[in-house]
Amino acid sequence: MQVRHIDTIAPVALPGIEHRTLANRAAGIASFEVWQQALAQGTATPLHRHDCEEVIVFTGGHGVMRHAGREVPCGPGTVLLCAPNELHQIVNTGDAALTLYGILSASPVPVMDADGNPIPLPW
Amino acid sequence: MQVRHIDTIAPVALPGIEHRTLANRAAGIASFEVWQQALAQGTATPLHRHDCEEVIVFTGGHGVMRHAGREVPCGPGTVLLCAPNELHQIVNTGDAALTLYGILSASPVPVMDADGNPIPLPW
Repeated sequence: MQVRHIDTIAPVALPGIEHRTLANRAAGIASFEVWQQALAQGTATPLHRHDCEEVIVFTGGHGVMRHAGREVPCGPGTVLLCAPNELHQIVNTGDAALTLYGILSASPVPVMDADGNPIPLPW
Repeated sequence: MQVRHIDTIAPVALPGIEHRTLANRAAGIASFEVWQQALAQGTATPLHRHDCEEVIVFTGGHGVMRHAGREVPCGPGTVLLCAPNELHQIVNTGDAALTLYGILSASPVPVMDADGNPIPLPW
């Protein structure tokens, strides 16, 4: 059993997104990855899809999930279950960080843009 | 994409454990399950193991993880990465609920006691 603490996991800072990988293949978990992210006020992820399942649990802030032409409100307690390759985008529409856990059923996680071009992840 | 809210997911109340399944095969996610649990003050899980990987993210309270003859302190921000079939037990040693997310790489999740006897899950 491996013991980690979120505060000791160095965040990867992308423009507008603070990302921590809590678990992945490199850390000894082969089947899935667990991410913690905070999207700064006024920011959004790219429109993207993963070739794996994803569950997102929102823990703080307010935003929307853009998917299939609709905007789903997201805030503390919202849980989104995404099938593989569903295009989606998370947008922070609130006045504070939008925080979440993401669980993805592959490690590493293959990410593509709307045209199917790979989006390399910096973590 | 499926949208849920934790407050609308009915908890399963075991003695000392309030459990919610946020995602599983029945909800459309085949590769893993996501659980939210609150262990009441003074309670513990059974000593058990799963025949799958597990990651636990603690979000509130204080407790210990008993594993391989040691007790690992657990509180907000502790992340435990468990290989398949590692015997473990979570004990709430604090004065409030011990809250966590558990992610398990199978759905349904096979759970056994220390002797290998199946522990049926009520959720």
